[in-house]
Amino acid sequence: MDGLARSPGYDVARIREDFPILGKEIRGKKLVFLDSGASAQKPRQVIQAMTRCMEEAYANVHRGAYHLSEVATGAYEAARGAAARFLGTPDAREVVFTRNSTEAINLVARSYGGGVLKPGDAVLTSEMEHHANLVPWQMLRDAEGIELRFIRVTDAGELDMEDYAAKLADGRVKLVAVTHMSNVLGTVTPAQRIARMAHEAGAVVLFDGSQAAVHRHVDVRAIDADFYVFTGHKLYGPTGIGVLYGKLPLLDAMPPMLGGGDMIASVTLERSTWAEVPAKHEAGTPAIVEAVGLHAAIDYVNAIGFPALEAHERALTEHAMARFSAIEGVTVLGRAQDRGGVFSFALDNAHAHDLSTLLDRVGIAVRAGRHCAEPLHARFGMEAGTCRASFGLYTTLGEIDFLADALVEARRFFRV
Amino acid sequence: MDGLARSPGYDVARIREDFPILGKEIRGKKLVFLDSGASAQKPRQVIQAMTRCMEEAYANVHRGAYHLSEVATGAYEAARGAAARFLGTPDAREVVFTRNSTEAINLVARSYGGGVLKPGDAVLTSEMEHHANLVPWQMLRDAEGIELRFIRVTDAGELDMEDYAAKLADGRVKLVAVTHMSNVLGTVTPAQRIARMAHEAGAVVLFDGSQAAVHRHVDVRAIDADFYVFTGHKLYGPTGIGVLYGKLPLLDAMPPMLGGGDMIASVTLERSTWAEVPAKHEAGTPAIVEAVGLHAAIDYVNAIGFPALEAHERALTEHAMARFSAIEGVTVLGRAQDRGGVFSFALDNAHAHDLSTLLDRVGIAVRAGRHCAEPLHARFGMEAGTCRASFGLYTTLGEIDFLADALVEARRFFRV
Repeated sequence: MDGLARSPGYDVARIREDFPILGKEIRGKKLVFLDSGASAQKPRQVIQAMTRCMEEAYANVHRGAYHLSEVATGAYEAARGAAARFLGTPDAREVVFTRNSTEAINLVARSYGGGVLKPGDAVLTSEMEHHANLVPWQMLRDAEGIELRFIRVTDAGELDMEDYAAKLADGRVKLVAVTHMSNVLGTVTPAQRIARMAHEAGAVVLFDGSQAAVHRHVDVRAIDADFYVFTGHKLYGPTGIGVLYGKLPLLDAMPPMLGGGDMIASVTLERSTWAEVPAKHEAGTPAIVEAVGLHAAIDYVNAIGFPALEAHERALTEHAMARFSAIEGVTVLGRAQDRGGVFSFALDNAHAHDLSTLLDRVGIAVRAGRHCAEPLHARFGMEAGTCRASFGLYTTLGEIDFLADALVEARRFFRV
Repeated sequence: MDGLARSPGYDVARIREDFPILGKEIRGKKLVFLDSGASAQKPRQVIQAMTRCMEEAYANVHRGAYHLSEVATGAYEAARGAAARFLGTPDAREVVFTRNSTEAINLVARSYGGGVLKPGDAVLTSEMEHHANLVPWQMLRDAEGIELRFIRVTDAGELDMEDYAAKLADGRVKLVAVTHMSNVLGTVTPAQRIARMAHEAGAVVLFDGSQAAVHRHVDVRAIDADFYVFTGHKLYGPTGIGVLYGKLPLLDAMPPMLGGGDMIASVTLERSTWAEVPAKHEAGTPAIVEAVGLHAAIDYVNAIGFPALEAHERALTEHAMARFSAIEGVTVLGRAQDRGGVFSFALDNAHAHDLSTLLDRVGIAVRAGRHCAEPLHARFGMEAGTCRASFGLYTTLGEIDFLADALVEARRFFRV
């Protein structure tokens, strides 16, 4: 588990000390946590921010005319501002807090898809999507008579941009919804080009940034994204909070998905009118403490800085690709030019679940299955699933070596 | 702030030591927190459970074949079991975790209302509801051609049960949605009788238990509730998590509101099939840490026990009613026979916001406004709003005296 000195970018060993769980032994083994793509561990800065909020500055928000409520409201809205700046927009009204990425995409599918699109319009997504960016569009298709199309994925694991152009050509696509980084292949998609082509064809574009926002500097204005979503718990922040970025006129045009307190301007028994964006899209008491935790997570990531994070990740990714590719019997899914620290792989002589169980015995946490991307696994003939190692800012080159060595051992073990 | 010895039930002074914020001074004043009806403070047991989860036992749930993920999944599902037992059902599948009560009611309105009810059916709610139990039904009415009716509220602040019977009489009401305890009047509604009458008329019944679940022992089986909702943050637990109880066949019959990971059985590009209840209604990564915190909150409340909590609350309520009623110029809304620790009041010579601002200066946190219940304020001719003092298990008789004395002072102040 050494090899720390080889990590460029920043001092990973020092960073690891911020994460209490990484210092723990799990059943007598040092934890080698390689499932950050499913959910990342939390630094003490995040945990402490949440604790401090509950111990010193807690009240409901937007509602009280007393000091403590004003403090809580200030903290909640400061988190919104931090999320906005994190995504590159100066306008905090363009940030809606949701439970997670899934809810954020559902909100767009339901309220923009159901409220703005018309029967006969088409939505274009891809074969590469997480179920969160697939199922909501299927539900929209079934409810509203909207056509659903899919951009093909190449053998290298990239979006087929010719196919993309072809599927935009008839002008019926009004919304494009694609991942900014695949949770299976690690592929980073050409967001700026995707957005430009969508706009030229008269469509708005949503990016699922659940993975990308953790690994790359995101600037929604530079991309010219219409919608962009990410989730707190993958960004070293709390569970229970996600972010929907949307351009103001679009959020404005969308009817609310949920009704209740905080999202209304006035209510009579007969009818209600809605509050301004973003309140209109946040019904009921929000995840206040989680917003404060997300703010701390954003501050934490910003303090390291994306140049350093990206350099670290590049080193991890190159090392992992070199090591895993060199192991006989291991197939790594996807060979995209632009890729991040997510590796799905299969062993020729073992089922993914058996492999992950074996790895777990030496302390390695990887995910086994189809990673909420069944169509993509089918595309690659991997219906039985894969194992996935996904890296965080605390991942070391030594951990990758440890996994690679364990894979060599595992293949030997299953051969017996 | 003494008068603790007069509180029956349990040792309030000792309990208060569990709540870090209650020991703090806010701008040099001891905090007199009387806004627990908006959101309650958190005991260190809840904060510690969340911290421990993030420091020692965190991973995503339902997805990993490794030890840490199994531990996290176990903790998440144990929370579901605790919530089920808290509500009096042995079947944890009848508990769906949501963000808050608002989302829980919206889920029923959208999925049961939109998926099971038919145009021409009626939903019956009341004039006494929080916007969370009003706006979703208005949205259902507008989207699906469902009629919306309202049970009248008497001058005493109780549901008019004759009006209720009359509005059920034509047999078109298929769903009754009422509060189990008013967040404005403190009125506890006769849930068992409401449910029986609804069932006799062929309707299912939903109770908004956001306030009631905090103040009364709830047994959904004894009530024979079809749906029951409450929220974590009012029950001394975390923000970002709420509970929908639903009878299994009803949850089963409801289509999902949100699509994504974790709620599917299988996904192809063409179509998806849903997982079993409750997973079907929980798309995406849930509020894992918040579920663990809610579990701790339920354990905390159970350790005191509802007999003691209810005795304490009765003492607070009687004392408050006696003290507030005796102050000249103070009007308390509602005189229900069965009521809990929520008091909305107005001063004859001051606006509610001015009054709450004045009270804040001596450290008293009360809410001012219409408390997300505009129609009810209109019903009582209180469009300008009221102040509301709402009690928690840590509230003391001394705090009520402090507020009462401050109200006397305030009236004098505003007269000048």
